[in-house]
Amino acid sequence: MEKLKEKILSEGKVISDSILKVDSFLNHQVDVNLMKEIGEEFGKYFNSKNITKVVTIESSGISPATMTALYLNVPLVFLKKQKPNTLNNDILQTTVKSFTKGETYELTVSKKYLQKDDNILLIDDFLANGEAASGAIRLIEALGSNVSGIGIVIEKSFQPGRKLLESRGYDIYSLARIKQLSDGKIYFL
Amino acid sequence: MEKLKEKILSEGKVISDSILKVDSFLNHQVDVNLMKEIGEEFGKYFNSKNITKVVTIESSGISPATMTALYLNVPLVFLKKQKPNTLNNDILQTTVKSFTKGETYELTVSKKYLQKDDNILLIDDFLANGEAASGAIRLIEALGSNVSGIGIVIEKSFQPGRKLLESRGYDIYSLARIKQLSDGKIYFL
Repeated sequence: MEKLKEKILSEGKVISDSILKVDSFLNHQVDVNLMKEIGEEFGKYFNSKNITKVVTIESSGISPATMTALYLNVPLVFLKKQKPNTLNNDILQTTVKSFTKGETYELTVSKKYLQKDDNILLIDDFLANGEAASGAIRLIEALGSNVSGIGIVIEKSFQPGRKLLESRGYDIYSLARIKQLSDGKIYFL
Repeated sequence: MEKLKEKILSEGKVISDSILKVDSFLNHQVDVNLMKEIGEEFGKYFNSKNITKVVTIESSGISPATMTALYLNVPLVFLKKQKPNTLNNDILQTTVKSFTKGETYELTVSKKYLQKDDNILLIDDFLANGEAASGAIRLIEALGSNVSGIGIVIEKSFQPGRKLLESRGYDIYSLARIKQLSDGKIYFL
């Protein structure tokens, strides 16, 4: 998506060879008109997949996922990052270890919002090592829903997330694919 | 807003005399078409206020605030709930104690995304005791921005949040105002 790539080049900050900061339009301040175009782009690409729900992970995925769900005219479900809770039988949790952020959290969903035979489009802001997406997929599939597609705003293609998910057969559409971050510069595939 | 009230009556769960759960369309699963109408409603009400940015608090505020910012054609900034960080001079933090949830967190903003003379529309999903909104206002005003309006999806009018904010002169527009929760029933003002 050309407009997104231009935005990344003009506003993205290369923090290290593996970290790109896009706080000015995606992760803290949000360019909502760009999010609308992102939602349309995901919506068009996955339009033939009979998507019944869009799923994302709080918090940065919520804006682009809202616009995608609106385009597809289906509900959005955002998975929560919570503390372990073994007392509540209505929820399902899975542990996600984020290498990028050095944190561990319990990705959480209420069982009633993902149903057997739901066709899920999973949307996330970044794909790096694939830990968060893999956790979301574990929850979705454990409840009998299908992962019908994965839409990623920014893919760090030099990290193993895409290969991992592709090897399991998922259809991944990334709007910007970064080949390399080095010397403060951003190189797309 | 009639459609929102109908949704609250048909899907809201009264957990106690002070807690209403609206996980099916706002706080976990999200009815994005309803969020679009909510964004239009806030946008129309505050249209004359020369709003330059919409501000909300992660995570449940992000969907309605995205739609509001889109209607007003301005950027969205979502405040983050983080751990205390005294090492980073680029951010501003304020402690919020939530009586409702029994938790304390540092509401956080990067200084560069709220500027002197910005006219801010603050959007949040719930107004109860007003702790979260008051914390957001502290950050906004500390950076020299104006709180030009406060848009609330669901106000629990039996709790003191509105009175507290009105006494400070803010213009609050709540789309559904709940007078009472009792015996599992919801009563609007």
